[in-house]
Amino acid sequence: MAINSLLTAATLLASQASAVLMHNALAVTPQMGWDNWNAFGCDVSEDLLLGTARRMVELGMRDAGYYYVVLDDCWSNGRTANGTLQPDTTKFPNGMKHVADQIHALGLGFGMYSDAGKYTCGQYAGSLGYEQVDADTFAGWGVDYLKYDNCFNEGQSGNKNISYARYERMSTALNNTGRQMIYGMCNWGQDEPYDWAFMLANSWRATGDIYDQFDRPDPRCPCEEKEGTNCALTGYHCSVMNIINKVVWFINRSQQGGWNDLDMLEVGNGGMTDSEYKIHMTMWAALRSPLIMGTDIRSLSPESYSIYMNPAILALSQDPTGNTAQRIWRYYVPSVNQYGRGEIQLWKGNLAYGDYVVVFLNAANEDMYMNATLSDIFVDEGGAESAQANSNWDMYDLWANRMPNATANAILSANSTMAATGMNGTEYSYNATAQSYADGIAKNETVLMGKNVGTWQAGGGSTWSVLVPRHGVMAYRLRPSGAPTTGMRRRRRDEL
Amino acid sequence: MAINSLLTAATLLASQASAVLMHNALAVTPQMGWDNWNAFGCDVSEDLLLGTARRMVELGMRDAGYYYVVLDDCWSNGRTANGTLQPDTTKFPNGMKHVADQIHALGLGFGMYSDAGKYTCGQYAGSLGYEQVDADTFAGWGVDYLKYDNCFNEGQSGNKNISYARYERMSTALNNTGRQMIYGMCNWGQDEPYDWAFMLANSWRATGDIYDQFDRPDPRCPCEEKEGTNCALTGYHCSVMNIINKVVWFINRSQQGGWNDLDMLEVGNGGMTDSEYKIHMTMWAALRSPLIMGTDIRSLSPESYSIYMNPAILALSQDPTGNTAQRIWRYYVPSVNQYGRGEIQLWKGNLAYGDYVVVFLNAANEDMYMNATLSDIFVDEGGAESAQANSNWDMYDLWANRMPNATANAILSANSTMAATGMNGTEYSYNATAQSYADGIAKNETVLMGKNVGTWQAGGGSTWSVLVPRHGVMAYRLRPSGAPTTGMRRRRRDEL
Amino acid sequence: MAINSLLTAATLLASQASAVLMHNALAVTPQMGWDNWNAFGCDVSEDLLLGTARRMVELGMRDAGYYYVVLDDCWSNGRTANGTLQPDTTKFPNGMKHVADQIHALGLGFGMYSDAGKYTCGQYAGSLGYEQVDADTFAGWGVDYLKYDNCFNEGQSGNKNISYARYERMSTALNNTGRQMIYGMCNWGQDEPYDWAFMLANSWRATGDIYDQFDRPDPRCPCEEKEGTNCALTGYHCSVMNIINKVVWFINRSQQGGWNDLDMLEVGNGGMTDSEYKIHMTMWAALRSPLIMGTDIRSLSPESYSIYMNPAILALSQDPTGNTAQRIWRYYVPSVNQYGRGEIQLWKGNLAYGDYVVVFLNAANEDMYMNATLSDIFVDEGGAESAQANSNWDMYDLWANRMPNATANAILSANSTMAATGMNGTEYSYNATAQSYADGIAKNETVLMGKNVGTWQAGGGSTWSVLVPRHGVMAYRLRPSGAPTTGMRRRRRDEL
Amino acid sequence: MAINSLLTAATLLASQASAVLMHNALAVTPQMGWDNWNAFGCDVSEDLLLGTARRMVELGMRDAGYYYVVLDDCWSNGRTANGTLQPDTTKFPNGMKHVADQIHALGLGFGMYSDAGKYTCGQYAGSLGYEQVDADTFAGWGVDYLKYDNCFNEGQSGNKNISYARYERMSTALNNTGRQMIYGMCNWGQDEPYDWAFMLANSWRATGDIYDQFDRPDPRCPCEEKEGTNCALTGYHCSVMNIINKVVWFINRSQQGGWNDLDMLEVGNGGMTDSEYKIHMTMWAALRSPLIMGTDIRSLSPESYSIYMNPAILALSQDPTGNTAQRIWRYYVPSVNQYGRGEIQLWKGNLAYGDYVVVFLNAANEDMYMNATLSDIFVDEGGAESAQANSNWDMYDLWANRMPNATANAILSANSTMAATGMNGTEYSYNATAQSYADGIAKNETVLMGKNVGTWQAGGGSTWSVLVPRHGVMAYRLRPSGAPTTGMRRRRRDEL
Repeated sequence: MAINSLLTAATLLASQASAVLMHNALAVTPQMGWDNWNAFGCDVSEDLLLGTARRMVELGMRDAGYYYVVLDDCWSNGRTANGTLQPDTTKFPNGMKHVADQIHALGLGFGMYSDAGKYTCGQYAGSLGYEQVDADTFAGWGVDYLKYDNCFNEGQSGNKNISYARYERMSTALNNTGRQMIYGMCNWGQDEPYDWAFMLANSWRATGDIYDQFDRPDPRCPCEEKEGTNCALTGYHCSVMNIINKVVWFINRSQQGGWNDLDMLEVGNGGMTDSEYKIHMTMWAALRSPLIMGTDIRSLSPESYSIYMNPAILALSQDPTGNTAQRIWRYYVPSVNQYGRGEIQLWKGNLAYGDYVVVFLNAANEDMYMNATLSDIFVDEGGAESAQANSNWDMYDLWANRMPNATANAILSANSTMAATGMNGTEYSYNATAQSYADGIAKNETVLMGKNVGTWQAGGGSTWSVLVPRHGVMAYRLRPSGAPTTGMRRRRRDEL
Repeated sequence: MAINSLLTAATLLASQASAVLMHNALAVTPQMGWDNWNAFGCDVSEDLLLGTARRMVELGMRDAGYYYVVLDDCWSNGRTANGTLQPDTTKFPNGMKHVADQIHALGLGFGMYSDAGKYTCGQYAGSLGYEQVDADTFAGWGVDYLKYDNCFNEGQSGNKNISYARYERMSTALNNTGRQMIYGMCNWGQDEPYDWAFMLANSWRATGDIYDQFDRPDPRCPCEEKEGTNCALTGYHCSVMNIINKVVWFINRSQQGGWNDLDMLEVGNGGMTDSEYKIHMTMWAALRSPLIMGTDIRSLSPESYSIYMNPAILALSQDPTGNTAQRIWRYYVPSVNQYGRGEIQLWKGNLAYGDYVVVFLNAANEDMYMNATLSDIFVDEGGAESAQANSNWDMYDLWANRMPNATANAILSANSTMAATGMNGTEYSYNATAQSYADGIAKNETVLMGKNVGTWQAGGGSTWSVLVPRHGVMAYRLRPSGAPTTGMRRRRRDEL
Repeated sequence: MAINSLLTAATLLASQASAVLMHNALAVTPQMGWDNWNAFGCDVSEDLLLGTARRMVELGMRDAGYYYVVLDDCWSNGRTANGTLQPDTTKFPNGMKHVADQIHALGLGFGMYSDAGKYTCGQYAGSLGYEQVDADTFAGWGVDYLKYDNCFNEGQSGNKNISYARYERMSTALNNTGRQMIYGMCNWGQDEPYDWAFMLANSWRATGDIYDQFDRPDPRCPCEEKEGTNCALTGYHCSVMNIINKVVWFINRSQQGGWNDLDMLEVGNGGMTDSEYKIHMTMWAALRSPLIMGTDIRSLSPESYSIYMNPAILALSQDPTGNTAQRIWRYYVPSVNQYGRGEIQLWKGNLAYGDYVVVFLNAANEDMYMNATLSDIFVDEGGAESAQANSNWDMYDLWANRMPNATANAILSANSTMAATGMNGTEYSYNATAQSYADGIAKNETVLMGKNVGTWQAGGGSTWSVLVPRHGVMAYRLRPSGAPTTGMRRRRRDEL
Repeated sequence: MAINSLLTAATLLASQASAVLMHNALAVTPQMGWDNWNAFGCDVSEDLLLGTARRMVELGMRDAGYYYVVLDDCWSNGRTANGTLQPDTTKFPNGMKHVADQIHALGLGFGMYSDAGKYTCGQYAGSLGYEQVDADTFAGWGVDYLKYDNCFNEGQSGNKNISYARYERMSTALNNTGRQMIYGMCNWGQDEPYDWAFMLANSWRATGDIYDQFDRPDPRCPCEEKEGTNCALTGYHCSVMNIINKVVWFINRSQQGGWNDLDMLEVGNGGMTDSEYKIHMTMWAALRSPLIMGTDIRSLSPESYSIYMNPAILALSQDPTGNTAQRIWRYYVPSVNQYGRGEIQLWKGNLAYGDYVVVFLNAANEDMYMNATLSDIFVDEGGAESAQANSNWDMYDLWANRMPNATANAILSANSTMAATGMNGTEYSYNATAQSYADGIAKNETVLMGKNVGTWQAGGGSTWSVLVPRHGVMAYRLRPSGAPTTGMRRRRRDEL
């Protein structure tokens, strides 16, 4: 059985309350933050972390929800004689607790990295066999988040049972500390974590490692799309489209408290166009991946800044329902890129309070007119016969109110925090420190909605047609037009 | 080796008697009943169950064989201090034993739901680690059937051995209670249950979850047809044709006492045409799936009612041999639907006393003339050379005597039980309470045969040609014409 | 590493002597015999076994090498109070030891059946957990051969390790008895037995169950050819071509003492043409499958008889080297059957004393001229540059001296043993009781060679062209023409 | 996470120093040597080993880096009464320690063979269960290298966990001896060793066994290319192109101390053209496979000799960075061989000190002009925007300075060592005994560079076009032209 009953949104939210508690109380919506890896690799230091953290506050990123500052691999100097992990004092001359304290003082959370193996990927000491010792150490340092990698795992993988046992050890250890820490499993999608990791962790990597390309295939990311459900070698150098096309099969396994992690964001690293980065950001939000910025925050371009900060997109990610967008259809098209790839896709997701999100994704090699009917969109709700297909919908374009470059530049070049400039949480950004996304959505905050661009008229065959640029995206929030329509039953998230 | 000798039907039935006993004595034919999930999801209550049960009696559904009233997920309020499961008293103010008693008083069986994991799919307390406690509780309540789900199983899946061990615990626990309870494994076809579940359970889900569509592909049901034998992610939103095309490989693993479960019936839920629902019902019966109605019995349309009640189709399901229909051929045709799918299939099955069933399934996008030869039908018996191919066969159309809508409406709108109206077990329905299907079949009850529509003349190349409507089915019982032909040896079910 | 050095034949045979002993000393060449299953299924009795055994002697089949008379499933009446298996006394009124004694008295070996599961496939008591008890029982009865099936194995399969452990238990038990018994694993090719079963058994089923069809696909045998290396559901109703095309990948895992079992022979059961049965027999011999007749010996047609008895084909099976033929090439051809299948294949194998076998297999739907070059045939030896390709070869047609129907009829209708007629081991048959195949081959017995039909002239591009009938075979023994050529190094069997 | 940060070469080398130690300190670059198997199989003896070793010294092969003389299977005479392995005294009349001493005296290392199973592939006593006894024996004999095979492993394979445990036993045993021995796992690529073997061994076989063919498919090597990541039956008779196309997915798992082993070199065995052998040698070096010569050193042709000795190619293999070349693109072309195969590929690898290697591989059936752009080559570094793509590169042809046949012949026919002739380490060969490859590369030794053939001008679209012969290769070292360019950040090896 799978949970696929028709429920009203009210029933949905109420029913959640009666569910048993999961392993911890965190990540009710996907975690947001920053991690140094994509941009800096092993080149880590106290300066990098604190400099970044300060900048995240100054630029309003903390207030937009980017809460965790995550230190990745290569921070270690092995274990002390009594077995405790110790930092490399060249990189962290004041120790890790100092870093955590400073980050906490900025109103941010501090994330650490370790590995469910004998060594980390960089061949530093791993935590396999030292789970409780290391969890206690991290708790003692004031860590709020653990990214837990998969290198050198002594062959302890190959089926769900084996991987579960290995990752469970750290889950238990973290809970034993008494400190609430996000547990982010970075096991590269091995052994179908969507089938078991929810019981252990707040997120699990769903696929091979991302790289900063939109749709280029690379033999180092070998699995085909259908192999996304059970890939022997998940690899790395996986493009944005590769990842999207692999998680489509199990997107529903994300839910409140545990999320498919599509890997860290590449926005700002230079390998994609602005339009491609918009796809990347939109889909990561709609698919409820953790949103972990992976670029140098201290030298952001205005374009990257406005992508990371778009409140209407972040509202998808932080929507309280925990529903994940699903793909309605996909067509291959003749207009292909140099790798022979070209396709268009339609996605739809349920949001709180009867809203929906619809995404037109154009990965063809030219601008495309794309069309969707209300029957398509509401196939789960009953298609042409559903109350939804027979309602009018106000359409809100989620990218229409993107922050202008001039505004972004003004903020980026200011010698003060964004809050101090008076630009925090106003026209182009949202201040989740002041008011949570859940409350903002409940209150219909304009900044979270996007721009009203018209009404989609009722009728199963009623079509929304839109020109989507090459390698581009158009994304909309749909909101019932006028008085609430009765009889709009909604499908609940179906399967666990 | 596999059991594929040529045996007469008489030998077949006799030989069964000498076989060792399986885990319990139930489900000699596939279980029939109703479950609230497909139509109501978590919206369960004493009222729903008892109201439905009463209506099943009034409408003659109990007497047609629909015996079990199964309560699905979300009935629980967790465990008491001493570890016993307890119902949600808002939904079940009088407790579960009261429900069972009332259902028993109506001459029906009571089914409960739990999960072979830490939580149920709805995140209520699961039975993993509590198997005996919960089996005792269910037995104490008077439960007759356990649907046992697969969510949150702590990674205890991934190969046959692991899943077997997990599901065996409840099998043993149920048997320990001393109460005979149907054990319906709902493990979504994971880990090839057709290869091991017969030893434990009366049925096992063979594929991903059904949804109310005939042939629409959905990425949430990712496996291709051939992956039906070993699907990493069985998923949900699997269409009727998807399920048929996945179980074809192991249909023979169904046998008396243990059945491939193709998931609950969607007839009446509105996502398919009447003709498509006829395919759904016919194939579920011919393939010997449990027949669990999944719609709101209290608001049945006459069309849905006459599909659920067709005695000639139910006689396939409840035929005492336990043989499952098999696919003789399949052709892709140019006439495809909007998803690019179009095909026709021929199925044939062995029935008791020398009868056969033949099903012409048209999943093309237009009406099709379909042809079968006796050589095709009897390829297992020796093709053109077989005694069967050289016999005449009386053909009985299994849908020709479907209850007219006017009759159905009269019953549905009557303020009395069907029995009271005198319509029970007469022209359009069968009363299995009065006489078992096995006995009715042995006695050649007319209502179980369908309508005689001619004779298929002897000869290997002799062809039966029939116009099958788009997305439709023609199904026949074949009975030897005239005196019994000698030399008709029949293949027994081949493999376990 | 794999054993693929270039060795002279003399070195090859010598080197074998130094190898460690395997689990028993039997099946140095593939076992031959008869099993009741394909023709009689559960309809077993003392009369059937002894009547067949007597007929095998009378017809010279024992002397041709068909030594084992194997009783299959359904002989049991469960266990006695002390746990010992006991026969069904209706079928075996004098017990099993009596049957064994009678068979031994005829100069034949007696084979029994059990199952590595809780039940046999026919749901009689299985041997899982009773391995030593049952092995002792079989030894006490005088059993010479155990066919050991795979039904109801309590989920103890799914990877090599699990299946190995289960089948090892009976292997050890049999060896513990002190009686030499052929151990024939019938685990349907599950869990890649070619990779581990040689250590335990004398043969292992390599694929799903055979059925009496040449090239008809059936959904009950679901795996594609390439899945032959690791098939989730090996199934049954697998055609002769299906089996050939699945074992091609691991034919080399057969060797002296342990063989890929392609399942029992269907010759005589009526589902194939004479020409197709010749393919079946030729390939089973060349691929070194056990040769277990699966038809009613008491009512053989002359054609079936002459196929089973062809000494030139049996000499392939019983060649002392233990080498298995390998496929040199395969082409799909436009001439296909009603299932869309049509292909031609060239096979080659190494035989003792510098001979080779070459098989032209035509599975196209019409007669085909087929060509092979010496470069093709000797690609392993070095192709056009090899000494072999630059030698002349006398060609012996292995079917040219097939016993005429008149001769066969005379034997089949005689009221005496073949030996008594003076026809045993003369023109058309071989008497291996009088002289082993190894000795006969060493002595160049004419009857084992086939008919000399010419010389294949030396040269890499030198071509042998032959008309092969539709669904037919031409098979040759190649023998160096004239004085032995120096420098003919041969590849040894490569991998274990 | 995977290691894919942008680092300068200096940072890269420095960071390696801080990594934890792996299981031993050997094979910092891929091991080089000779093994008797490919050419001699079981025909082993003291004479063969010592004669070969002496010739390796005489011909300068030792000084070129071919250090290990590895004895393969069939040396054993089983175990003594106390369980110790003992050699066959016919083949090794003076015992193994004597062999080791003699080899050591020549300045070479001695390799032995055993098997992680009950028997070796040749059915001699295996080491499973005798790991420590045998490791101690080998250490006592003075062994420097263990090739450890996979035959007859008692079903102890099937997933990573099982294979890891089996191979770990010998890893631990070898380390326990206190003697440093290369541990070369020969487990045929089973169970994805790239995912776990680095923790145990210095190399692991990545695929099925090689055979001496360039691109001929053979059913005994059944897996398709994509199955290279998880092949059920890796097989043997795998061609050079088959192996290249299977390791492409996980080439990055090679690193200092542990290498993907592509199997022993076939150069000199006669099944490929000189041009094909150049591909073989180039790719094995660029892909960082161990370089184990597999031919008869005592009868080398000048062509084979000059391939094995090419210092510019060996410098790829022994480059200190441990980076492995990766495939940039691959195209299928219409010009195919008789097996229907034809393709071209572009490969690129990072070398020490800012150099790169680029390989144009033409496996089409005709000469091809092949083109690469700097954007292609430097896609990982940022493509057209990278500093690399905007630099000039001096191009060094790695085969242009191949030793002429006349020179080779002079050396091969000389009655003295190469060193004595004064030809060692001069124009056409490198003397690594005198100076390590690492030092030679650091010092820009001309002989390691190849021949300067021009400059590739800066610019993303700047194209290098070259005519590559049919089944041939063109390989270049790229070195920054003129003053070092600033800003050339390099990707470090990405994933473990």
